[in-house]
Amino acid sequence: MSDSMEQLVREFERFPGIGPRQAKRFVYYLLATSAQARATLSTLVERVGEEVKQCALCQRFQSGGREMCSICADKSRDKTSLLLVEKDQDIIAIEKTHLYKGHYFVLGGVLTLSGKGVIREDFLVRLIKQKVKEGLSEIIMALSATSEGEHTSDYVRTLLAPYRTHVRISVLGRGLATGTELEYTDEQTLSGAILNRKEF
Amino acid sequence: MSDSMEQLVREFERFPGIGPRQAKRFVYYLLATSAQARATLSTLVERVGEEVKQCALCQRFQSGGREMCSICADKSRDKTSLLLVEKDQDIIAIEKTHLYKGHYFVLGGVLTLSGKGVIREDFLVRLIKQKVKEGLSEIIMALSATSEGEHTSDYVRTLLAPYRTHVRISVLGRGLATGTELEYTDEQTLSGAILNRKEF
Amino acid sequence: MSDSMEQLVREFERFPGIGPRQAKRFVYYLLATSAQARATLSTLVERVGEEVKQCALCQRFQSGGREMCSICADKSRDKTSLLLVEKDQDIIAIEKTHLYKGHYFVLGGVLTLSGKGVIREDFLVRLIKQKVKEGLSEIIMALSATSEGEHTSDYVRTLLAPYRTHVRISVLGRGLATGTELEYTDEQTLSGAILNRKEF
Amino acid sequence: MSDSMEQLVREFERFPGIGPRQAKRFVYYLLATSAQARATLSTLVERVGEEVKQCALCQRFQSGGREMCSICADKSRDKTSLLLVEKDQDIIAIEKTHLYKGHYFVLGGVLTLSGKGVIREDFLVRLIKQKVKEGLSEIIMALSATSEGEHTSDYVRTLLAPYRTHVRISVLGRGLATGTELEYTDEQTLSGAILNRKEF
Repeated sequence: MSDSMEQLVREFERFPGIGPRQAKRFVYYLLATSAQARATLSTLVERVGEEVKQCALCQRFQSGGREMCSICADKSRDKTSLLLVEKDQDIIAIEKTHLYKGHYFVLGGVLTLSGKGVIREDFLVRLIKQKVKEGLSEIIMALSATSEGEHTSDYVRTLLAPYRTHVRISVLGRGLATGTELEYTDEQTLSGAILNRKEF
Repeated sequence: MSDSMEQLVREFERFPGIGPRQAKRFVYYLLATSAQARATLSTLVERVGEEVKQCALCQRFQSGGREMCSICADKSRDKTSLLLVEKDQDIIAIEKTHLYKGHYFVLGGVLTLSGKGVIREDFLVRLIKQKVKEGLSEIIMALSATSEGEHTSDYVRTLLAPYRTHVRISVLGRGLATGTELEYTDEQTLSGAILNRKEF
Repeated sequence: MSDSMEQLVREFERFPGIGPRQAKRFVYYLLATSAQARATLSTLVERVGEEVKQCALCQRFQSGGREMCSICADKSRDKTSLLLVEKDQDIIAIEKTHLYKGHYFVLGGVLTLSGKGVIREDFLVRLIKQKVKEGLSEIIMALSATSEGEHTSDYVRTLLAPYRTHVRISVLGRGLATGTELEYTDEQTLSGAILNRKEF
Repeated sequence: MSDSMEQLVREFERFPGIGPRQAKRFVYYLLATSAQARATLSTLVERVGEEVKQCALCQRFQSGGREMCSICADKSRDKTSLLLVEKDQDIIAIEKTHLYKGHYFVLGGVLTLSGKGVIREDFLVRLIKQKVKEGLSEIIMALSATSEGEHTSDYVRTLLAPYRTHVRISVLGRGLATGTELEYTDEQTLSGAILNRKEF
């Protein structure tokens, strides 16, 4: 393989979930496609970084050159609650439920048990200070139900301790996920399901 | 294959989760093992049916020739709640949580959407009539979070409608199961997780 | 669980490919089925050991009380070749090709690299001595293309060394299996495929 | 999502094996990385198409601005045989066996049973005409052992019919692939393995 082929393979290997074999396949796909298609991709990769900026409040990526994203700018949303997620895509998942009407903050990652990972804690603390003044009453931690998600939730809780007098801090409830059979369900999930049982 | 080999293959094919290939393998395993081992298995298969009886109340399988199983006979258990499960093994899963102290009833299966399946509804209705007199106040439906589980729960709810004046009927809560990442979570599960969020 | 339930679970755990959870499920299946069905299974498990005997020549399991199995007794089969397989089911797979018309011998297992496993080597040597007198000219080793299969083939080759002057010893050819894509094919398989290429 | 984000998602969805969810993840990865990294990727995507050209003979992708790739230019390679593969990566797999010393031709795809797909048949025919004059004696079709691979081989055979008087056409041999157990092997593979059996 040529130098630029090998360099391109290495760039694709950095993509999430992509190993050496698929990275190579991407390069052959690009070689087999038209010069036009490569130019389009090249331009978009460059342009997306210029057009898309992080929202000054929730830190999610958004285009249009505005300071705030559409949710943060929406005055009809409930200012008293803030829901913390790991990544931009999680907001889409929550919005689909049509159950949550408050604001969001994107942590931008999780903290691993081995001490790796970075979250946007300075932005978070600054935002919460401001939102407390504007009447914030609940922070919902909506992280993954994984050991890393729980570890990050624990860390954020410590970070938010000074605000507990004003703000209720909650986490998403545990319970049966769609498709779950009882026999294969772990104790923590089943405990949540029993405690969260509801009128039927 | 001989007649008795073929017949035995057919019997093993009826075992849950066993296809023709594994059924054949079971037969070859039995042929290759000792006459002693085959005699032991043969005796146990016969004996288990004689020694193990269903509990007169919850209908789970139990040995010892007693009328009631150890849970139904345990006077320290809470008589005001009854938890319905699909199968015996589900009781073990619930007991491991150490959260539920009431009684159980084993439905013995689920009803499929296509109208198949049988549950022990006569036993259930009889037991609930009796338990209502003894102060039953809650029936928890702890079926799988699958379409068949939900269909069966719906059916049982209709069956129990006459008792609703005395008894609260509930279902296990939905929410994040251990290991769940938000991005991959369906709306129903996520809705449950938001509604069931708790102080952290 | 009762004693006989627990004992039966342990017996089913010995079945090939069956873990504790499925073994328990088998027991609950038997409890839920009829006494009649349990009696049938119990009888068949006992009877199969009496009715089915190993063929005096190839050692496969067969019923009918005859000394030899139908293949070994079939005078139209080619007496000059003998194909060695690991287990009875492999014979069925080979017969389906309609390509091989000789005789078989079932080794009854493989030898593992860690020195475990038993094969019927006394029966094999005795059979080959007899077959050499009757004109045997080829022994085909049709073992799995796994490290254990190859290790066993190597051992059997040593065992058969004294007969090489009279008998050709061969192994199944390597090559592309149905469904194989070149890119994912290991070197040994691909080497076999190149060497075994054929007129098209 | 912004226009350029959505367009970029669509471009990544065209990558082999990439669905909408992973395409989105790629875009978020690019947004979260540095402007520098995006510029590098953008440049490489553009440059790879300029630097890498197809070999005038075998049609594989190669850099360096030369007319022929290193294999086609190598005078020590055997000019009497030509091996046809689906894609560039297959050449690497074959070269690793160190068994084949002839030349290659990359078809650039397969023909599907439903009539889709394109192969470089004009280049192939032109190359074969030239190679026949230079002494070509064997064409080896090294396509995948899948229905599409076989369908393409059949088509190419028809295409090459006029050259059969001068050139032997062969296909890769079928047989046991590494890791195969006999019991699970289909008849075609097993037939190949028996026919291709070799001295041991």
